[in-house]
Amino acid sequence: MPDTVTDKVTPVPQPSGQRGPVEHDRRRQILDAAHDHFKTYGYAKTTVGDLAKAIGLSPAYIYKFFESKQAIGEAAVREALSVVIVELQTIAAAAKPAATRLRLVYRTVAERGVELCFKDRKMFDLAVAACDEKWQAIADYQACLSGIIRTLVTEGREAGEFERKTPIAETTEAILMTLEIFARPTMLEQNLDDPIGRAENMANLVLRSLAP
Amino acid sequence: MPDTVTDKVTPVPQPSGQRGPVEHDRRRQILDAAHDHFKTYGYAKTTVGDLAKAIGLSPAYIYKFFESKQAIGEAAVREALSVVIVELQTIAAAAKPAATRLRLVYRTVAERGVELCFKDRKMFDLAVAACDEKWQAIADYQACLSGIIRTLVTEGREAGEFERKTPIAETTEAILMTLEIFARPTMLEQNLDDPIGRAENMANLVLRSLAP
Repeated sequence: MPDTVTDKVTPVPQPSGQRGPVEHDRRRQILDAAHDHFKTYGYAKTTVGDLAKAIGLSPAYIYKFFESKQAIGEAAVREALSVVIVELQTIAAAAKPAATRLRLVYRTVAERGVELCFKDRKMFDLAVAACDEKWQAIADYQACLSGIIRTLVTEGREAGEFERKTPIAETTEAILMTLEIFARPTMLEQNLDDPIGRAENMANLVLRSLAP
Repeated sequence: MPDTVTDKVTPVPQPSGQRGPVEHDRRRQILDAAHDHFKTYGYAKTTVGDLAKAIGLSPAYIYKFFESKQAIGEAAVREALSVVIVELQTIAAAAKPAATRLRLVYRTVAERGVELCFKDRKMFDLAVAACDEKWQAIADYQACLSGIIRTLVTEGREAGEFERKTPIAETTEAILMTLEIFARPTMLEQNLDDPIGRAENMANLVLRSLAP
């Protein structure tokens, strides 16, 4: 089955609620139609029937791939976030001081957050639903952010850039909370007057707190 | 008019959308009924008709005091937050090191946030509506928090407790963002596993960043 191959090269785990044979092209077609509909009409107002109609399939056929509208929404969110995750992982692995990488993480989270949630205003609904309903894709994104912060703090400590007294779990948790201001759509919305400037300001506060 | 006297002794400005003669007892009666209804049924499901019925008045009579359900909701939120504001102002004015007062501010914002938004789960709806719809009472609370942070940072700098290099507007803005994690119901909800511990952790990160 081709889907086994696809799953193997996908770095991010598949969302729950997906069904049946994963025929790559059909799945792609459904997700593309979903993206267009979510962007134009919003997640709440889109039905599986609308998507079926848009691509000339029966709703029953779509249910062979996704067990519900939420499963389609989750796949869309996961797909969008997986691009950001790869970008963040690349930043975290770069041969630069930990402080520089941490600054870039804040900037990237804020920039991508604005693009994903506010470039097309209707996409905000999807992002809010994902957060409110605690979709797995959001938990995975948080876990990624948490892992990156822990890595950067650890490497910064080893390089003598950061203080070593505070327990690393405590530092990581606090920094993660400040990063979520720019990762969560409803909080990011509060900072839309200058999201990049504010993310930079927050990175500076965090870096002052990390000073040895 | 008795309302002039009432307005004079009220430390917090009146919400917009209030009408007619402020007859203290009637207003109180409407707000008490609103509090009970919001707590039991939620803000969204309560109508002005329900409140009128509960206190044996006509809806038209209620509209003499409040121009809409939102005006009642705003008055309820303002009333609840004005108690928190007084408490925070008392903490800010205490004869203690700025660091101690800042820690207490984080704890108090988190504790009162949990009490106001999560003790009665239905009150969360009212708090979210207030934030989503940017009610003036929320902007006033934010202005209060911002003013308190600025005061504490300034006094901590003057006392030699805090560093003086970072522009004070930048420091205040960044600290306010970290405090809002515990002031905004949707963010506080993410930290309900240990709101007080997390607020303390955040205060510690901020205090490390303020170290001279």
